[in-house]
Amino acid sequence: MQKGKFITLEGPDGSGKSTIAPLVYEALKNDGIDIILTREPGGVKIAEDIRKIILDPDNTEMDVKTEALLYVAARRQHLTQKVLPALERGTSVLCERFIDSSLAYQGIGRKIGFDEVYALNRFAIDDHFPDLTIYFDIDEKTGLDRIRRNRDDIDRLDGESLVFHSLVHEGYKLVMERFKDRIVTIDASKTIAEVTKDVYKIIREFL
Amino acid sequence: MQKGKFITLEGPDGSGKSTIAPLVYEALKNDGIDIILTREPGGVKIAEDIRKIILDPDNTEMDVKTEALLYVAARRQHLTQKVLPALERGTSVLCERFIDSSLAYQGIGRKIGFDEVYALNRFAIDDHFPDLTIYFDIDEKTGLDRIRRNRDDIDRLDGESLVFHSLVHEGYKLVMERFKDRIVTIDASKTIAEVTKDVYKIIREFL
Repeated sequence: MQKGKFITLEGPDGSGKSTIAPLVYEALKNDGIDIILTREPGGVKIAEDIRKIILDPDNTEMDVKTEALLYVAARRQHLTQKVLPALERGTSVLCERFIDSSLAYQGIGRKIGFDEVYALNRFAIDDHFPDLTIYFDIDEKTGLDRIRRNRDDIDRLDGESLVFHSLVHEGYKLVMERFKDRIVTIDASKTIAEVTKDVYKIIREFL
Repeated sequence: MQKGKFITLEGPDGSGKSTIAPLVYEALKNDGIDIILTREPGGVKIAEDIRKIILDPDNTEMDVKTEALLYVAARRQHLTQKVLPALERGTSVLCERFIDSSLAYQGIGRKIGFDEVYALNRFAIDDHFPDLTIYFDIDEKTGLDRIRRNRDDIDRLDGESLVFHSLVHEGYKLVMERFKDRIVTIDASKTIAEVTKDVYKIIREFL
């Protein structure tokens, strides 16, 4: 039996991944494609428990390396308990965020270092890189404006400064250079309908 | 000002660390020594939250690498938030479990590999190795008998097999070979009073 494909959606906060993902997923399901939609951090009980610790606004004393380790722990559990079993049974997986988020946010944004965070992720994911990654490209200012309009998104991370968001953008640029073979970039500043159509088309052609 | 000393207590389950630690700590405090007693995983709120996930008996699906990452995340937070600030202000730290537990339990016991777990720990602790480690040496059978007598200790980890405990013992032997410069071994099969006296004496001479 053929394995499923592992497709990840990446991009900074406000790039529209969470809005677009379910729309694309529904369109793929309507075409009869065997696929699941999931996200990081979370997706399985243990990873959701870890997510709660990361996003708890009371946890202001969290060290940046603790945070990186928790994201990677959640990634490992989600990968082994949900993603890999699905791929094994032939189901494709559409996943919001994966290793590239760690590299951009913790490696560059939090200044831990790209290579150190890469090594940490290799411990957690072994050789299970995505087959395809769609990068939601958006300029810093538009991304931040979108976050501010969406009040539901206010948690500890969104209290961070413009400098941090700028570093995350820089981090994603490094990610795209390093992994260009598996990454397709889309223009995420377009309308929801347009971005949905673009992402849908890329995945349809890939599968 | 002189920095405090970082002293860790290591050994397999049932070796008596948790019983001895507060007795030795009280004796040191009575001598007027500036020292705190703490333990892993836990010791600060974020690390206690992580501990709950690790020890939750419902979390039977936890992957071994997820577990290793969570232990190391708790270690990092405890180190940066509690241990290092104490050492900086001149207070010594007596800590139950640290990097050596990861190496023995996760590296060898869970078969992730000594070097992989060592690299993971180096990410988390930087160069903050203990100044002194006291290893509670006990044969496998005596350790297990002690665990079984102590019903309060029943959690997910203690449901593990004899084979796992045997591997942990083997892991600690590797740890002792690798880090003999900072490790002193005591005979943990002796009575509580005797072990307390031995550990107290070693720390008193070291400080």
